[in-house]
Amino acid sequence: MENQHKKSALSEVNGVNQPDSLSNAVAKRIQQKRKVIPSASELIEAIKKGDKIALSRAITLVENTNPEHLERANEVINGCLPFANKSVRIGITGVPGVGKSTFIEAFGTYLTSIGKKVAVLAVDPSSSISHGSILGDKTRMEELVKNENAFIRPSASGDSLGGVARKTRESIILCEACGFDTIIIETVGVGQSETAVHSMVDFFLLLKIAGAGDELQGIKRGIMEMADTIVINKADGDNISKAKLAKTEFNRALHLFPAKNSGWNPKVTTCSAYEKTGIDAIWSIISDYFTLVKENHFFEKKRQDQNQFWMIETINEQLKNNFYSHPEILKLLDEQKKAVQNNELSPFAAAKNLLDKYFKI
Amino acid sequence: MENQHKKSALSEVNGVNQPDSLSNAVAKRIQQKRKVIPSASELIEAIKKGDKIALSRAITLVENTNPEHLERANEVINGCLPFANKSVRIGITGVPGVGKSTFIEAFGTYLTSIGKKVAVLAVDPSSSISHGSILGDKTRMEELVKNENAFIRPSASGDSLGGVARKTRESIILCEACGFDTIIIETVGVGQSETAVHSMVDFFLLLKIAGAGDELQGIKRGIMEMADTIVINKADGDNISKAKLAKTEFNRALHLFPAKNSGWNPKVTTCSAYEKTGIDAIWSIISDYFTLVKENHFFEKKRQDQNQFWMIETINEQLKNNFYSHPEILKLLDEQKKAVQNNELSPFAAAKNLLDKYFKI
Repeated sequence: MENQHKKSALSEVNGVNQPDSLSNAVAKRIQQKRKVIPSASELIEAIKKGDKIALSRAITLVENTNPEHLERANEVINGCLPFANKSVRIGITGVPGVGKSTFIEAFGTYLTSIGKKVAVLAVDPSSSISHGSILGDKTRMEELVKNENAFIRPSASGDSLGGVARKTRESIILCEACGFDTIIIETVGVGQSETAVHSMVDFFLLLKIAGAGDELQGIKRGIMEMADTIVINKADGDNISKAKLAKTEFNRALHLFPAKNSGWNPKVTTCSAYEKTGIDAIWSIISDYFTLVKENHFFEKKRQDQNQFWMIETINEQLKNNFYSHPEILKLLDEQKKAVQNNELSPFAAAKNLLDKYFKI
Repeated sequence: MENQHKKSALSEVNGVNQPDSLSNAVAKRIQQKRKVIPSASELIEAIKKGDKIALSRAITLVENTNPEHLERANEVINGCLPFANKSVRIGITGVPGVGKSTFIEAFGTYLTSIGKKVAVLAVDPSSSISHGSILGDKTRMEELVKNENAFIRPSASGDSLGGVARKTRESIILCEACGFDTIIIETVGVGQSETAVHSMVDFFLLLKIAGAGDELQGIKRGIMEMADTIVINKADGDNISKAKLAKTEFNRALHLFPAKNSGWNPKVTTCSAYEKTGIDAIWSIISDYFTLVKENHFFEKKRQDQNQFWMIETINEQLKNNFYSHPEILKLLDEQKKAVQNNELSPFAAAKNLLDKYFKI
């Protein structure tokens, strides 16, 4: 308010002073709060010390689509990279209704009980549309969410699976640098999200229930082939015998697939996440897997391949984005589409016209 | 030789005249032959008159990767476009051993006997590697190859499926402008070639034999789901009852798939290409299909969608080619790959570096 008595002809000379809309105390508090936003190096240091609040903030930064934040996000990630990679990454998928949340609650709690630090992330591109993220409702993991050795983060939102996948991949790095040694990536059986998750984890667990009748769907979409272990959940009460039967059937189905490059024979097991039975056996299977793939160096090779894959995927995605978001291309694209529709131009000639234009811009 | 007496110090003055390596008569013949290469408009006119030699030449032009010929090829295709689209396009696939060549021979001969003009093209990206094109050996279609209402062309070669697919798509246009009303596109059950063929035909026929045991493979790769009709071949002699049993089984399997957008219920039928039985029934099924999809306008919609698909595919393919063939990018790509491998850089940061460089070039 001190600047109100300006020398401009437009200024109200000797006008009535307006009351301050913001008390000095409030302004100071806001200033302080702004100042508190940590720098990249502060975030990195805090994350390395296991600070979960810093981890949350860094993930929020990674998820932010503001280009201004992108640079700082990259700085944090690259700073965390040397301290990452020291975990096991487990993907968990299953169609709605198989009890994924209950399973992760039981499985994650078991892992912390044997000294593991567990981070749970999710890849659910639908959550940005439906606003109903599978992990959005954290109350479904009541116990785990309060556990100090666990960190739960709902799915990033984004307009594309590629975007969500990138954010999750980068969040894994941050979680690992923060000391989480067991990373669980949850996904729902929708679209291509399993393939995306499969390409960012070391071990892929398919959750099933007996008699769901979606076997063909699973085979067709290649999900069963990706599984390192199939867990038949809800093996409790009247369901136990059905679950055992399903186990035999899935075992038979798995034999139809060619041998895996990992040298691992996929296993089938049953559990009850609700009664917390069979959970230790699942961890025992997973441990066997990691012993094998670390011995035969498949573990390392797969991570390298995944890194290459994500680099190339990101490039290809960006090349397309750049092309299809260019205003001049969008205009020409419309024209060329119409010409193709009217049989005046072959699709290939239209493509050539568009590309010629693009590379001249 | 007339220019030999040059005024240069290096020229042999009054040297002995060398004999002509080429007689004037030969030179004239070559000149004439060169002159005979028809212009784009000459090709278009000849094709429209049903000239099979002009059609062959135009396809050769389309298959030529020389950039110099590309323009003329595009001219021919765009000139033929208004006269194309008046055919039915049938895709035929089946693993080696189901008798594809014999089937096409019998089926194509039947079609010409009821007044159709039949063009047979092939999509076989492996042929460029193995030099063993499925249609390379035309003697396997002895009858059809001599038939004046048939035109058979082996698979184009090319380093990628995308390249082969483009050439085949363009050849379809040329065949149609030449008056061929039934286009058969053959492909072998390898890699993604079925998907490519499926996206360029109106009707997709899956050829099978009884008891081959590759059902799971077919389901998994989505080929069975693409089929508008499954034909069980070799239903002759001792095989008839087995083929009938297979028909029942495939019918049951088809019911597991969701309804098709075309409104068509896929059919299963048996035939013996060798004994030429059941062929007319197949054509009757195909005719029913075309009656349905022309009535409900799916036919037109699908062709439009396919055109869009190929336009976008071509663009995306070219965008990648341009990026990954750039010498400066190739150099940087190598460096960035190593940095990612050594965990100095996240795959996303590496991708960003490469893209930043690319868009500055």
